[in-house]
Amino acid sequence: MIRGKFITLEGGEGVGKTTNLDFIRNYLQQSGIQFLVTREPGGTPIGEAIRRLVIDSQGISAQAELLLMFAARAQHIEEVIEPALTEGIWVVCDRFTDASYAYQGGGRGIDPKVIRFLEGWLQKGLEPDLTLLFDAPVEIGLDRARSRGSLDRFETEMPAFFSRVRETYRDLARQWPHRIKLLDATQSLVDVQAEIAKHLDELRHT
Amino acid sequence: MIRGKFITLEGGEGVGKTTNLDFIRNYLQQSGIQFLVTREPGGTPIGEAIRRLVIDSQGISAQAELLLMFAARAQHIEEVIEPALTEGIWVVCDRFTDASYAYQGGGRGIDPKVIRFLEGWLQKGLEPDLTLLFDAPVEIGLDRARSRGSLDRFETEMPAFFSRVRETYRDLARQWPHRIKLLDATQSLVDVQAEIAKHLDELRHT
Repeated sequence: MIRGKFITLEGGEGVGKTTNLDFIRNYLQQSGIQFLVTREPGGTPIGEAIRRLVIDSQGISAQAELLLMFAARAQHIEEVIEPALTEGIWVVCDRFTDASYAYQGGGRGIDPKVIRFLEGWLQKGLEPDLTLLFDAPVEIGLDRARSRGSLDRFETEMPAFFSRVRETYRDLARQWPHRIKLLDATQSLVDVQAEIAKHLDELRHT
Repeated sequence: MIRGKFITLEGGEGVGKTTNLDFIRNYLQQSGIQFLVTREPGGTPIGEAIRRLVIDSQGISAQAELLLMFAARAQHIEEVIEPALTEGIWVVCDRFTDASYAYQGGGRGIDPKVIRFLEGWLQKGLEPDLTLLFDAPVEIGLDRARSRGSLDRFETEMPAFFSRVRETYRDLARQWPHRIKLLDATQSLVDVQAEIAKHLDELRHT
């Protein structure tokens, strides 16, 4: 049994992850690839309960937030991601550990060494085969997120918070150029999706 | 302002923690000491939500359970324990980090190095001034817990699980004899409480 591929989508608010997830779904369907789509925090009943807790709780500490994210992730890896990959099913996940570096690390100032420790302990070498990082200036993303309607606890953070998130994401892309593909989300949708298709084509043939 | 003292209660199921907590409450009241009583997991609105999640969730992974316990603890330390101790208020807490070593470490087999890492990161030197460890053979404790009525997810574990929990607690008491006082919970209540009073007397005068 050939192991499935693990694809993650990353990026700030309003960068078009949801729209492009539909495109990826269609691409994989048309290619006859068996896959599942999931998200973090979430992806399991426990993970979704943790997601609601993290998003709804005012005054949650940065450390507690990081630990909740990794608790959801631990359950997600054990219950969903690893079993699927082992059975040859591709996994497409809306946000993964890069988001912990960006939001809890860059955004909230948690020491990245702590994140690296938890990543090493829980993932035991599991990492995405391809990470699509949707990048856009903070103001553009926030305007789009606002126009979508009500904002959650993360989306009401100050612009400086999102600038740190974006910079951390861009640093990660420089650090892992083979895995993380930075996509300019200010391009037309057609152009962004042409790039996505190119990366997926490459992934199918590796 | 003299910093408050931090007292924790530890032990397996049915060892009399609740009854002895009432005794400690009376002792501190009669001594004119300002104090608060709290518990883990719990002690804050977020912590209590995490407690319900941990106790109710079937099939939660050992890693996720540990991370949820520490998420609740992070919030508890920041929101309740540290502010109280700083204001000179004593804190009496039903279970703390020793319980993570005993239940998630000894009981579920999590590497104690991971627990030590999280403890060091979150507690930054905060540790109890006195830990009262209520110790009884597993069968006695479980019989008492059963006679109390319905059992939660932890209380329906196999006896081997509780034997590992007890042994880990006893190891901790050997490792930290100055801080952790092992109390033989099979003694009469009067004898147990005489020992507790002796330890509290000592703590007041240090």
